[in-house]
Amino acid sequence: MAATAPRITAVDTYDIRFPTSRELDGSDAMNPDPDYSAAYVVLRTDADDGQEGHGFTFTIGRGNDVQVAAIDALRPYVLGRSVDALCTDPGSLNRDLVGDSQLRWLGPEKGVMHMAIGAVVNAAWDLAAKRARKPLWQFLADAGPEWLVSQVDFRYIADALTPERALALLRNGREGAPQRAADLRKRGYPAYTTSPGWLGYDDEKLTRLARQAVADGFTQIKLKVGADLDDDLRRLRAARAAVGPGIRIAVDANQRWNVDEAVAWTRALAPFDPYWIEEPTSPDDVLGHAAIRAQVAPVRVATGEHVQNRIVFKQLLQAGAIDVLQIDAARVGGVNENLAILLLAAHFGVPVCPHAGGVGLCELVQHLSMFDYVALTGTTENRVIEYVDHLHEHFLTPVAVRDGHYATPAAPGFSAAIRPESIAKYRYPDGSYWASTPAAPDPQQNGAAA
Amino acid sequence: MAATAPRITAVDTYDIRFPTSRELDGSDAMNPDPDYSAAYVVLRTDADDGQEGHGFTFTIGRGNDVQVAAIDALRPYVLGRSVDALCTDPGSLNRDLVGDSQLRWLGPEKGVMHMAIGAVVNAAWDLAAKRARKPLWQFLADAGPEWLVSQVDFRYIADALTPERALALLRNGREGAPQRAADLRKRGYPAYTTSPGWLGYDDEKLTRLARQAVADGFTQIKLKVGADLDDDLRRLRAARAAVGPGIRIAVDANQRWNVDEAVAWTRALAPFDPYWIEEPTSPDDVLGHAAIRAQVAPVRVATGEHVQNRIVFKQLLQAGAIDVLQIDAARVGGVNENLAILLLAAHFGVPVCPHAGGVGLCELVQHLSMFDYVALTGTTENRVIEYVDHLHEHFLTPVAVRDGHYATPAAPGFSAAIRPESIAKYRYPDGSYWASTPAAPDPQQNGAAA
Repeated sequence: MAATAPRITAVDTYDIRFPTSRELDGSDAMNPDPDYSAAYVVLRTDADDGQEGHGFTFTIGRGNDVQVAAIDALRPYVLGRSVDALCTDPGSLNRDLVGDSQLRWLGPEKGVMHMAIGAVVNAAWDLAAKRARKPLWQFLADAGPEWLVSQVDFRYIADALTPERALALLRNGREGAPQRAADLRKRGYPAYTTSPGWLGYDDEKLTRLARQAVADGFTQIKLKVGADLDDDLRRLRAARAAVGPGIRIAVDANQRWNVDEAVAWTRALAPFDPYWIEEPTSPDDVLGHAAIRAQVAPVRVATGEHVQNRIVFKQLLQAGAIDVLQIDAARVGGVNENLAILLLAAHFGVPVCPHAGGVGLCELVQHLSMFDYVALTGTTENRVIEYVDHLHEHFLTPVAVRDGHYATPAAPGFSAAIRPESIAKYRYPDGSYWASTPAAPDPQQNGAAA
Repeated sequence: MAATAPRITAVDTYDIRFPTSRELDGSDAMNPDPDYSAAYVVLRTDADDGQEGHGFTFTIGRGNDVQVAAIDALRPYVLGRSVDALCTDPGSLNRDLVGDSQLRWLGPEKGVMHMAIGAVVNAAWDLAAKRARKPLWQFLADAGPEWLVSQVDFRYIADALTPERALALLRNGREGAPQRAADLRKRGYPAYTTSPGWLGYDDEKLTRLARQAVADGFTQIKLKVGADLDDDLRRLRAARAAVGPGIRIAVDANQRWNVDEAVAWTRALAPFDPYWIEEPTSPDDVLGHAAIRAQVAPVRVATGEHVQNRIVFKQLLQAGAIDVLQIDAARVGGVNENLAILLLAAHFGVPVCPHAGGVGLCELVQHLSMFDYVALTGTTENRVIEYVDHLHEHFLTPVAVRDGHYATPAAPGFSAAIRPESIAKYRYPDGSYWASTPAAPDPQQNGAAA
């Protein structure tokens, strides 16, 4: 029975929290004390191959339980599905979840419920790629253009990108793909590093890490800005002095500013030649980004890690609001929606430089950029994947970055699996770490209980 | 002790679901089978007055448990707060919740977590108005302009509306306010009714209810559209024949269309003189609404019930994308954010016609429109509050609509309290109705489990 018609038999969820707030890794102008966390989901089947599908939403601590509850709410939609049907058409799951009339009210297509859908959909893609015995990037690159188009939801984006145009882009992307795949396996995909630039680091550490980044082969680094202009000027001066004029320095405000502040602050930083200003204001503000971009050129405008869905990305592109589009592998509705976003970016000719870091975001998003290079845009010019060097040790197939490049994954799947011993230790609140740590995350730090 | 420094002592939550899918009330092109629900919260204190603060998020069934979990996640931010401090500055709670760096990752300011914040913030306003012994509309209208401005978060909207401009609008709004308050108590606030227009109703019922609406004093009705053009043409023809040329008929597509479809469909309906086309496409698509509006005039474009926050409303106004702005009392971050949205609408001169219906949305939103009339815009011209005649019987102080007008509430608070016996019956899954009803909401109806 199981051999002929395997089914999804379990949708197991885990609240995993790493105590990163105890150090200052990950601090920025909006997020002073993150505990990097994952609302993690495992799809299990009764197939003989024993394969599982893994996915997750990244959060920064409090509320990870809400995210887990949202994934739990999707369980009835997934349990009992045919594994074969799911793996030959992951888009069917994406459509059923995004289109569910009752769940849709909780978004639509945004926030907690949409991220939960993304986690489950990504888990289905992980399973599909594993069963095909291919890393996800290759699974996508080997797929036919017609099938890829069938995986995209064109609702609300058809005014900017038609299925026909998407098909043409993908057909064009196939030309030379084998050569690019071989090249990718040899060279990897270009990375940039945010490790020097966290707000919590002093200038000595910033300078040392910036020099180390150049020595490690990176040609771009990133600094967090936006808390204090004098500090930012001093830090950017130090970073520029450390790396010299030939290295790109991106700066990232993490949504700290109103439109006018963003313009003034970015202009003040301009003498140090920042390559892009990232998240200058609310990710919801398409027109605000367009206004900022018009006033801060030649500094480029980048955003995307908090952009909720393809509809907002569509408008950012339509409005000419961004120079750099930053996909995130775990915020939108999974691989299907990221295919739509990659296609939109290709159509508008805007380079994609993914957001990564967090928990496992590097592991996931490398596959999307590598697919884009091999079988869609065919180029890595002005394209880099963010790299942050922490928490990779918790993954079964962690990313490897060498000489400023992501090494191309060879293991089947989406690189999403967290090590069982890490789950046992950091599961919240009952993992061995948290059970023995009395000071759990405490919102009262933020001034509640007046 | 309690008499001198009362505190918030409990944040109790309830998953309440009404089995509305058993009838066809509430059906539209995107929501065929809603079970109108509320994720309901009660703030309790140890003050001697025994007052409670009530608030809720409206959902349409599945996922209401996720919404409750999100409100539960806010409990630590609310417990122990000084009641006096909270009631003299509800904005402090709004700022702490919206600004929490970790919860913010789950939005920011959108979806499940933002609606949860809205429920808790609205409960605080309910408590504040009750302690002041005023209905919320009057509590707001009696407040000083400076204080009201202090309740608004101008982050991300200051490029369109400054605090100074908001203050000027509110100061101007005070002129003649006592006279308008007296007028409001006498006349009430104009309403329109959606009761005739649900997609599930046949033409006979539509015609009968449309005529009844006119007989009941309504000067505007609304029809759901978007499932089938021929059906819509037939239904709109029937409605127009029933009410005559002098009654406004709004049509509502509930986000059914892409931009081009919205234009074509609306133009096809234009011969029957629809007053506005509501939610023609995704609520996230500012530029799409602007494109639609430019092509369907003189039919007006309306949206807002799913608009996630003030930042998207700001852009809809900046882009000239809407003729009618439809606030919802329970989707954004509570009264504070709706004050921002009312001020934006006033600044841009766009009339506000609130979304209502659902569970308790009429009860809440009437207060916001009445405040707007008495102390902000000073007019009800081209302004109507949606009215749907169901589920009011579950509220302690239900709305009363007479002669096409909402009667002005006199009871202190935000009219948010659900009757204890309704909670006992419809609490999910353990209330007496659900415990005795084997067929609970089942997502597999939607085609999962292939």
